Amino acid sequence: MDKKSEFYTLKGYKLQENDFITEAMEDYLEMLFRITNGQNKMRIKDLSYELNVKPSSASKMVSRLREHKLVNFEKYGDVSLTNEGIKLGSYFLWRHNILVEFFKCLNKDNYSLEQVEKIEHFIDHITLCNMEKWLKKID
Amino acid sequence: MDKKSEFYTLKGYKLQENDFITEAMEDYLEMLFRITNGQNKMRIKDLSYELNVKPSSASKMVSRLREHKLVNFEKYGDVSLTNEGIKLGSYFLWRHNILVEFFKCLNKDNYSLEQVEKIEHFIDHITLCNMEKWLKKID
Repeated sequence: MDKKSEFYTLKGYKLQENDFITEAMEDYLEMLFRITNGQNKMRIKDLSYELNVKPSSASKMVSRLREHKLVNFEKYGDVSLTNEGIKLGSYFLWRHNILVEFFKCLNKDNYSLEQVEKIEHFIDHITLCNMEKWLKKID
Repeated sequence: MDKKSEFYTLKGYKLQENDFITEAMEDYLEMLFRITNGQNKMRIKDLSYELNVKPSSASKMVSRLREHKLVNFEKYGDVSLTNEGIKLGSYFLWRHNILVEFFKCLNKDNYSLEQVEKIEHFIDHITLCNMEKWLKKID
């Protein structure tokens, strides 16, 4: 295929990207920052409970985050965010909150958290800033 | 785990859903409707070119769509949408177009098709209707 048309499938876009941060990793960092505020530790069991996943899955994912130096974690121990993890976690929580406000404003009583959770991974920084501006304008 | 907290990972949401239509199937139905307008046939080769996938991948996916009675398709032949495929394809194209207009309006020169393509699968009908109303209001 010589020419590339402008349309890709969702999988096609994902294959183009080299970022090592997966959507699941984003969810974990966001939750870790939400609960610890970047200062405290939390237990794997509590993290898995908050994210509705099995403790064994949380344990695996936290090990991956540790490989990327985003968390400090001892097996069966507590988890805390590194400085780099705090940067990312606080960004993901900011992103989440902007989208919650934006969709609450757009959909009022029909607001659904589920929709925000699904799309937040794909919303870029410029869009978030424009949503934030828009929210300030109508405030 | 007795209690379910309100947060899920993206994968968690996907596991909750029983819908047989995947994001890739949505992309194919949208493109088929875009090109054929629900009336004409198109060749697998052209469909794969438009979606930037290999002809063999397009062939496999179209076979899956045929299993669900959404397209008519003979191996190595032409593809056309069934009535049910037309209903879904036209909905997905409408959804796409609303999102394009909405994000063009929000992001102006920084509009990116990629972002729409990534999130469209997760945007519900109520949100689309509210976006459409908003666009009419500011027109």
